[in-house]
Amino acid sequence: MKVELWEITRVPEIFIVRCARVSRGKSGTNELILLDDARDFIRKLIKRGHESVLEHAWATFYIEGISRVCLAQLTRHRIASFTVESQRFVTPKETFVIPPSFEKPDDPSIKAMVDAYLETSKAVFENLLASGIPKEDARFMLPQAITTSLVMTANFREWRHILKLRTAPDAQWEIRALCTEIGKILMEHAPSVFEDIMEEK
Amino acid sequence: MKVELWEITRVPEIFIVRCARVSRGKSGTNELILLDDARDFIRKLIKRGHESVLEHAWATFYIEGISRVCLAQLTRHRIASFTVESQRFVTPKETFVIPPSFEKPDDPSIKAMVDAYLETSKAVFENLLASGIPKEDARFMLPQAITTSLVMTANFREWRHILKLRTAPDAQWEIRALCTEIGKILMEHAPSVFEDIMEEK
Amino acid sequence: MKVELWEITRVPEIFIVRCARVSRGKSGTNELILLDDARDFIRKLIKRGHESVLEHAWATFYIEGISRVCLAQLTRHRIASFTVESQRFVTPKETFVIPPSFEKPDDPSIKAMVDAYLETSKAVFENLLASGIPKEDARFMLPQAITTSLVMTANFREWRHILKLRTAPDAQWEIRALCTEIGKILMEHAPSVFEDIMEEK
Amino acid sequence: MKVELWEITRVPEIFIVRCARVSRGKSGTNELILLDDARDFIRKLIKRGHESVLEHAWATFYIEGISRVCLAQLTRHRIASFTVESQRFVTPKETFVIPPSFEKPDDPSIKAMVDAYLETSKAVFENLLASGIPKEDARFMLPQAITTSLVMTANFREWRHILKLRTAPDAQWEIRALCTEIGKILMEHAPSVFEDIMEEK
Repeated sequence: MKVELWEITRVPEIFIVRCARVSRGKSGTNELILLDDARDFIRKLIKRGHESVLEHAWATFYIEGISRVCLAQLTRHRIASFTVESQRFVTPKETFVIPPSFEKPDDPSIKAMVDAYLETSKAVFENLLASGIPKEDARFMLPQAITTSLVMTANFREWRHILKLRTAPDAQWEIRALCTEIGKILMEHAPSVFEDIMEEK
Repeated sequence: MKVELWEITRVPEIFIVRCARVSRGKSGTNELILLDDARDFIRKLIKRGHESVLEHAWATFYIEGISRVCLAQLTRHRIASFTVESQRFVTPKETFVIPPSFEKPDDPSIKAMVDAYLETSKAVFENLLASGIPKEDARFMLPQAITTSLVMTANFREWRHILKLRTAPDAQWEIRALCTEIGKILMEHAPSVFEDIMEEK
Repeated sequence: MKVELWEITRVPEIFIVRCARVSRGKSGTNELILLDDARDFIRKLIKRGHESVLEHAWATFYIEGISRVCLAQLTRHRIASFTVESQRFVTPKETFVIPPSFEKPDDPSIKAMVDAYLETSKAVFENLLASGIPKEDARFMLPQAITTSLVMTANFREWRHILKLRTAPDAQWEIRALCTEIGKILMEHAPSVFEDIMEEK
Repeated sequence: MKVELWEITRVPEIFIVRCARVSRGKSGTNELILLDDARDFIRKLIKRGHESVLEHAWATFYIEGISRVCLAQLTRHRIASFTVESQRFVTPKETFVIPPSFEKPDDPSIKAMVDAYLETSKAVFENLLASGIPKEDARFMLPQAITTSLVMTANFREWRHILKLRTAPDAQWEIRALCTEIGKILMEHAPSVFEDIMEEK
């Protein structure tokens, strides 16, 4: 799995406070906003549940090497924008996400069976393409473990919602790992916005 | 593939016109709205691009036996509500959607290879479960052709958008078949809303 | 203020459970769902925060006689559909919402001033129309207290969100009165969905 | 009316193409994207109706001095984020948007009537505040011409939709002027995204 931050609002905490000041009729003043003050202000906003102003900041991530299982969960978030590697038109990299539970020290036969099966999958897929079957049909045979790439953009309010849900203890392990990674990067850029969710994770 | 209409606004064309009359300040009058007049009115609205009033009518479909490939496309529509059979907690029916292009009269070897592969898939999946691997991990091995079930609710404006996109000639065959089915059912209940998209399909 | 329920999902609590069962792979069975069981089930869903299945049920209200102040707050909810009486094309009923705080038993001068002012408003508005000024311009002179009508449709998950926010003690009095009215009606049709928010209101 | 661009995606046309390349499986290559090539690519995307990738670019505007009439139209766009000057807690600047149609060279009496009325409005509003009526109630008396300020963020796909609708000949004059201003600024930063809508405006 690879996670890259591709775009983010410049100095997002200051920007959020600048936007918030408009609701209090203070937009005209060009008063300097100090980062520490901005952070205190945002912490208070979040405690009171006033999260709408967080929508003015946004971040775009490039994500590589997650399974189609994980993608299916990710795209269920509807207040976000996605551009996903097309399986209709692109021959996928034939790499797979292997659940850690498959690695049993006392029973290597599971891993062996899975490896052989995935080799078969690739052979079937390539055979279908060689027989003139279009990519968009051949992919029906690919296991859901097949990796994919995407770009995902969301605003900070929605990132908070996604991270809260998907880094929780009952979240599925792959999306949890992905969202923990995303959360760590967002923490570097806007700690006051994400610390209540990401701390101790 | 099975498509069932589970819920729909009562007499939707009359209801849409009843809502539209509010924008013209005519809500107080309890004037009878005739179905023919309602349909003429809706056709004019759609021609002028005034589709927002169509959002007051809704329809819910139960869909069974589509592939995870098709599901992935369907859930990309963000102005709709989905409840999908959980692969984390439910052992899926081990049935698969087979692309029609696999059936080559002159080359039965393709179908034979696919059949054997799908049998292997099932065996691997069941073996993993038998070895104590949780469902949510074992499913990584399932081919994307595996079938699933879901309920999907959207308003009429969004159904128009989905049907226009997904019944177009360049749409992928499975979602096209599904949306043609949905469109036919919606045509029975509200022809004036869907006829410009569904006619000749 | 007048609030009428114009449309609602039939027996919504049963319908919600019917949809929820799909996620557990139980859609095929035509098992009877008892209302009491449905309600228990929904209460548990809500306690666990699993509200997405509530999106399959929806309700449409016709609302008459709220101020443009209240309308402005209402239309800020983005996961809902609105058809509003057009001020561009309809001559509004010249009735106004008077805040209760204007009625001071010890100081009738406030009410008198306001009454006189509203009469002036009407005269100015009518004068403008008589001078050939288009409605869409003349309305700039109308006080925000002017009443309007609308139809509003939202799903149950969103109605929950709106009611929670807008019936809270710090909500503005007019939208609070409106949403309390809406909540009471929804309580009659789906108590298990709304009781945690509406009880004691 | 004052319109300021407060935030926008850096070199948005290049960024959009960078995102689009992911759908074709080309994200790994660090190939240079030339601005002219990016523009040609975006023009083709738009012609084919493939606008989803435009959602990865965003712009935030600060808008000052529009009427509450214009605000009401603007906030009806639901795929956008708004922070509006609060009339509940902020004493508004008592300035008004005067429709150009009020200025009749041959009939100065209209303008005179309106001016006198607006002076009365201010006096009534101030009197109410002086009598201890809360701001959130006194504002009911303010004419809809009263000005307000806001911050608005939307992605490029939605800005296209808003500009197309609101710069059309039948759009209301104030929102048309506002959106023409916004469109001109966006044209400077991403001509290939907005030129088909904004040219000749």
